[in-house]
Amino acid sequence: MITDAFDTGPTRRFRTLCRRYPDDTVYRGADGFRSLWGPVFYRGRANGTARLLVVGQDPAQTEAFTRRILSGQAGRRVQGFVEKLGFTSSYLMVNAFLYGIYNQSMALGHLNDPGVLEYRHRWFAAALAPGRVEAVVTFGNPASQAWQTFLGSPEGAGVSVFHQRALHPTADKPGGPISRRDLLDNWNVALSRLHARVTAPDVVRPLVPYGGDLTPGELPGIPSRDLPAGIPPWMRSTDFWAGPGDPPGAERANLTVEVPSP
Amino acid sequence: MITDAFDTGPTRRFRTLCRRYPDDTVYRGADGFRSLWGPVFYRGRANGTARLLVVGQDPAQTEAFTRRILSGQAGRRVQGFVEKLGFTSSYLMVNAFLYGIYNQSMALGHLNDPGVLEYRHRWFAAALAPGRVEAVVTFGNPASQAWQTFLGSPEGAGVSVFHQRALHPTADKPGGPISRRDLLDNWNVALSRLHARVTAPDVVRPLVPYGGDLTPGELPGIPSRDLPAGIPPWMRSTDFWAGPGDPPGAERANLTVEVPSP
Repeated sequence: MITDAFDTGPTRRFRTLCRRYPDDTVYRGADGFRSLWGPVFYRGRANGTARLLVVGQDPAQTEAFTRRILSGQAGRRVQGFVEKLGFTSSYLMVNAFLYGIYNQSMALGHLNDPGVLEYRHRWFAAALAPGRVEAVVTFGNPASQAWQTFLGSPEGAGVSVFHQRALHPTADKPGGPISRRDLLDNWNVALSRLHARVTAPDVVRPLVPYGGDLTPGELPGIPSRDLPAGIPPWMRSTDFWAGPGDPPGAERANLTVEVPSP
Repeated sequence: MITDAFDTGPTRRFRTLCRRYPDDTVYRGADGFRSLWGPVFYRGRANGTARLLVVGQDPAQTEAFTRRILSGQAGRRVQGFVEKLGFTSSYLMVNAFLYGIYNQSMALGHLNDPGVLEYRHRWFAAALAPGRVEAVVTFGNPASQAWQTFLGSPEGAGVSVFHQRALHPTADKPGGPISRRDLLDNWNVALSRLHARVTAPDVVRPLVPYGGDLTPGELPGIPSRDLPAGIPPWMRSTDFWAGPGDPPGAERANLTVEVPSP
């Protein structure tokens, strides 16, 4: 027998947000959004118990399958980050964009389109409403800008929760200007500031910074309690099992999933 | 904005059954089971409110993606069947096998393996426990045998709920011995018997039997309330968007999903 906790789903305001959401007239395929795949809402505790709010960017192939954000390569890196802070369960992760992006240069300029922004602010407001969130960490520029915009809005007026920026979890693109080491140096700074502020993690632990590269222990599996019931272990503990189809289709319509070799 | 109900998930005993379940030592890949993809538990009301229990056979590609049983071609046919009886919501669908099958001749003989049978009986018992189920319909021989075996077991002793058999929803294989007409004739007999017994459907409606072929109205979409939040409409209202990968991989490890052309 397998005994695996699973995500029992959003409650209250979060449930309403998963029931009524922007459509493809807000997130247009022609604007670079992968709206064909539908929205992907959150990962973690969408039930009012979260004490850490994580903001990411947008879902990709893996997330189109799991229907939870940050569950692929970027998600496992973020999971390692929050676990270094002692958050093993009491986090809520949401994205700046509700739908995936297939063309960043087309899509990113729509970050504050009215329909995008209003709905995102409802998630932020719902996350903060119970008064338990003690820190917000944003990964990447769109996430950081989304939070700043919220703070400047009527809904965010008076919000004083600690906010820490960090680089996007896959900012270290091969051949790009940001190395793995740059990314981890940035994350170490973010971690140290957050660790000093956090008072109620799930597990109190000393902060162990990243070294020159990510270790296996810094890439934990996505907890089964964050995913739908019955998701097999290989989907939680390996990367790149989902990818574009061949052909990928217009607006990345197609998707291929391959069980990794043991 | 889109407003779509979604499945808020299993409760009570059903939740426990989705948390603890047989692994791949019970459903072995070497025995023809697609255990690599994980279990797929149910579709419909796993919360004690079901008044119709539907038993199918096993999940396939579409269901590996939606994580709900009977959501592909067979599922839409079954949806049309239960809606003819006036059941638009108050049904629970479970399968004889918790995991998909890639080789029927290898797998079907394991229908009553102890680990398969004991867990399935727990689902049947949970479905009946609230005392609301007024009929059971089984689609295909494994489903019918599973129900008969339950009735003969200690857990099923004293169960007197009306049971109706029906052919498997895709029994009309091209070139096979059962024609579309044969299938629908069989379903018409099953419907008439069930319709005469059912006292509390969601919608009271006269029984309209099938004609010589399935009409578009007899292939309704899978209700959004039966699926996870955010599943796009094309996944609910078209068939064959999920298929084996190319190559399919050992034990059908791989999966391809293509958004249908509009």
